[in-house]
Amino acid sequence: MSDFPPPLSGSAQDETPELRPKFNADGLIAAITQDVATGDVLMLAWMNAEALAATLETRRATYWSRSRGELWVKGETSGHTQEVVEVRIDCDQDAVLLKVKQTGGACHTGRASCFYRIVPFDGTALSRDPDMG
Amino acid sequence: MSDFPPPLSGSAQDETPELRPKFNADGLIAAITQDVATGDVLMLAWMNAEALAATLETRRATYWSRSRGELWVKGETSGHTQEVVEVRIDCDQDAVLLKVKQTGGACHTGRASCFYRIVPFDGTALSRDPDMG
Repeated sequence: MSDFPPPLSGSAQDETPELRPKFNADGLIAAITQDVATGDVLMLAWMNAEALAATLETRRATYWSRSRGELWVKGETSGHTQEVVEVRIDCDQDAVLLKVKQTGGACHTGRASCFYRIVPFDGTALSRDPDMG
Repeated sequence: MSDFPPPLSGSAQDETPELRPKFNADGLIAAITQDVATGDVLMLAWMNAEALAATLETRRATYWSRSRGELWVKGETSGHTQEVVEVRIDCDQDAVLLKVKQTGGACHTGRASCFYRIVPFDGTALSRDPDMG
């Protein structure tokens, strides 16, 4: 199932009812993961065709680890799994949005979300979300 | 202000209170935009250092258009502006999360969000979010 048809061009890609993911030069598509219960954005990761197909087939969020160069079933070692409730794709099909039931922290630091630091508008010291440690 | 210090390595990057964005080989960082009122994820776009600095300075979401190769003040032509309420950055500082007050549709197709199509788990025809046309 990881043999997806190629993207179309222009508005045809925006309107097609076919899944035609647009992978980048490295063969990857961006994946935003959102907690289905809280609406919090948890992380941004990457998928190759195999990871996208595996996520759909298993309903467990599966990414491509760029640092390790391998398929990465989220939580396989940490136990912090993501049960995928819904998958969406954007207009030009170069990004997916996963709505998940998150077990444990989504971030490798152990925090609930990777977005635990707030950037002040004056660009000085980041502050931490007190709810995320 | 677009002269940011370089990223640190490993956990030092995860824990630093300094803004040290990690731009990719093209000089870009991913930006996820979320509606601050509804929690809906609206779009994924890209920023170079200048776009990130401009977003912080003006509090109007400003991206780098990869297709046009130029700075892109969201809504400058469409009027569909994004007033930035909060900016967050992720653990390794290669993605930012903007919480915005969105005027009009965030998507270039006119829809509220770019993520208007749902991918079924069996990979067949995408369905459309009925609330987004």
